[in-house]
Amino acid sequence: MTWQHLELNMAGAAEHMDVVYLDYNATAPLRPEALEATLDALRSVGNASSVHQAGRGAASRVDLARQRLARLLGCAPGELVFTSGATEANNLALRAVHSGGGGAIVTTVVEHPAVLEAARAITTGGRGRLIELPVNRDGAIELGPLEAACQRGPVSIVSAMLANNETGVLTDLTPVIKLTREAGALVHTDATQYVGRLPLDLSELDVDLLSLSAHKFGGPQGVGALFVRRGVPFPHRPLLLGGGQERGWRAGTLNVPGIAGLGAAAEAVRVRLHDEAARVAGLRDALEAGLTSRLPGCRINGIKSPRLPGVTSVTFPDIPADAVLAAMPDVAASDGSACASGAPSPSHVLLAMGLSREDADSTVRFSLGYATTEHDIERALDTVVRTVREVRRLMGTSAEP
Amino acid sequence: MTWQHLELNMAGAAEHMDVVYLDYNATAPLRPEALEATLDALRSVGNASSVHQAGRGAASRVDLARQRLARLLGCAPGELVFTSGATEANNLALRAVHSGGGGAIVTTVVEHPAVLEAARAITTGGRGRLIELPVNRDGAIELGPLEAACQRGPVSIVSAMLANNETGVLTDLTPVIKLTREAGALVHTDATQYVGRLPLDLSELDVDLLSLSAHKFGGPQGVGALFVRRGVPFPHRPLLLGGGQERGWRAGTLNVPGIAGLGAAAEAVRVRLHDEAARVAGLRDALEAGLTSRLPGCRINGIKSPRLPGVTSVTFPDIPADAVLAAMPDVAASDGSACASGAPSPSHVLLAMGLSREDADSTVRFSLGYATTEHDIERALDTVVRTVREVRRLMGTSAEP
Repeated sequence: MTWQHLELNMAGAAEHMDVVYLDYNATAPLRPEALEATLDALRSVGNASSVHQAGRGAASRVDLARQRLARLLGCAPGELVFTSGATEANNLALRAVHSGGGGAIVTTVVEHPAVLEAARAITTGGRGRLIELPVNRDGAIELGPLEAACQRGPVSIVSAMLANNETGVLTDLTPVIKLTREAGALVHTDATQYVGRLPLDLSELDVDLLSLSAHKFGGPQGVGALFVRRGVPFPHRPLLLGGGQERGWRAGTLNVPGIAGLGAAAEAVRVRLHDEAARVAGLRDALEAGLTSRLPGCRINGIKSPRLPGVTSVTFPDIPADAVLAAMPDVAASDGSACASGAPSPSHVLLAMGLSREDADSTVRFSLGYATTEHDIERALDTVVRTVREVRRLMGTSAEP
Repeated sequence: MTWQHLELNMAGAAEHMDVVYLDYNATAPLRPEALEATLDALRSVGNASSVHQAGRGAASRVDLARQRLARLLGCAPGELVFTSGATEANNLALRAVHSGGGGAIVTTVVEHPAVLEAARAITTGGRGRLIELPVNRDGAIELGPLEAACQRGPVSIVSAMLANNETGVLTDLTPVIKLTREAGALVHTDATQYVGRLPLDLSELDVDLLSLSAHKFGGPQGVGALFVRRGVPFPHRPLLLGGGQERGWRAGTLNVPGIAGLGAAAEAVRVRLHDEAARVAGLRDALEAGLTSRLPGCRINGIKSPRLPGVTSVTFPDIPADAVLAAMPDVAASDGSACASGAPSPSHVLLAMGLSREDADSTVRFSLGYATTEHDIERALDTVVRTVREVRRLMGTSAEP
């Protein structure tokens, strides 16, 4: 299914060609259920804090969404704080916990900038140490430095992502949580790319805080959530002060259409998650098999690690990723994260995994999702193979064997 | 026009009765143009930071919205930072400017909590003084304490709202700006209730920062903006760190559907603002005239001051506002701001204007807007008059003359 087909029989905007959309880690197309719920809320009027009927209508939409998201995550509805997205959730989590009292923030070198930059800002000026754990060539976190940090102490919070946005590599949080608990610190995980792609159960996964974003799993942009485990004595330090919404964790009029859309996407994905994950992993595997067999020399980053079903990070040695992407406008993929697209610096994730700067700049991320079809992958495969061969030929870099 | 009629021929949700919606200061119904633009963006896929075609489509929607909002405000598109709403914009403005270096934040006692609570949090722990300017009985700011604060100095920022959310009383910013400039401080104004209700020209109004929210003038919830005047040497201190979006002022994937809706609402209101303001003011005046003539003893707060066209704050002495509101479910109005609805404490705005706690608790805010009709006002007037008489009778508080 091309994303054009998601236009639901509406007049397509003029800029649309028949693009194979393989950039789900940047943003996923809105699920039909989410569109419907968002629309329903957009067409109604009501501030969820108002006590009259219109306000209660808005509040009930928010309640339903909170229940639906809680069901997807295996937590209580009251443990969820709606935010404007994962960036806000990540910033809120770190700022809420880290008191600046000298404890360290421990995170990993491969985190999203919303964690890394927030952690750096929070710990500048002597307000605590920042420890960034390295990863190995497969993208897995090195635990030695975490042990050392916990022994040295004090640590206020350990923040490690569940799935990397560029490579899809999954983090095994179990040993991280164990070490963190022994150090008496709190655990936060950025689950932005994980939620809605693989099953998650917060009654099993013992993290204190978890960030997510709706638009990565088929909800609308501009809305996300922070899970805040009940009973954990967090300092009350919201980022946004004002009306006292979300039990004081996040002020501001609730984004009812966005929240309703998030809830509907959560419900839609919950009932299909196992099937979707298996199907998408199959398509991703087919794409990887096709690329590596037809384009000798290309390498899959993180392939030895458990990964998200829909992501592949492919290095085409000696040819710049931006040249490949520019030469195939009918395949939407990315040379790194969307946030850093067009930025001159190479991927910090790939460098941390030991890639050279040249290899990092020769890497394309393809991310598949719920609406990706077999036909999409066949088309993408043909286009990518033809384009890479053509760019290789034009640049005279490397003839195929 | 009742808000039910805004459902655009869709199947109405079951909770809807034929309500006269007079709570535009809590949230306004979405303008049809905003619905269309939001929907168009929801149906497309694209992260505005992605460089491929889908990303460029998203970015062009954001560009258009930025131009439209700039045209409404009389500023340059590059002076606008999109946020998740006015609460975030207010928090960002104060935190960005106030360095904690000992300067004072000067604001007013009648600000929205998003300014007051942020200012209080920022200045706690010896990080600068907080001066809250009083208002007179008409809701106008007292300038004497501002002069004194500026003379005592240093002042980092003066933040005064353009229009009060509970009474609609307008602030004459000219003398505030003059005093602030003499003190070498920056000026922020919370224009959340003003934008889209009265004309504004930032090439004339010499403020450095201005906050606004889309959903108060017919855009969607969950989106707003902060105007940041070009050339003013602000410290770069964003609230949300991460991807570097919005020229580093606000990280996070842009909420393209929300921003597109904001832009469309701005464009729709720009071309009609003078007519809408005059029409709405006429309806408000008719409501006030009807209430004061038919319900002797009721009082309009701030009536001697210039006010927003669509707002009236009416005190019905001796009868609790919540009893009146509960007894007329077919009129949606508010006993204070939506944020504080249901809260036990009386309005800080009305108390600051010298009302007793009893009178503050006997005050209803009616706020009208672009879709309010003459028929709405006739219906509301009849309902309110009948309800107040009935509550008076039941409570035996005060017979009419």
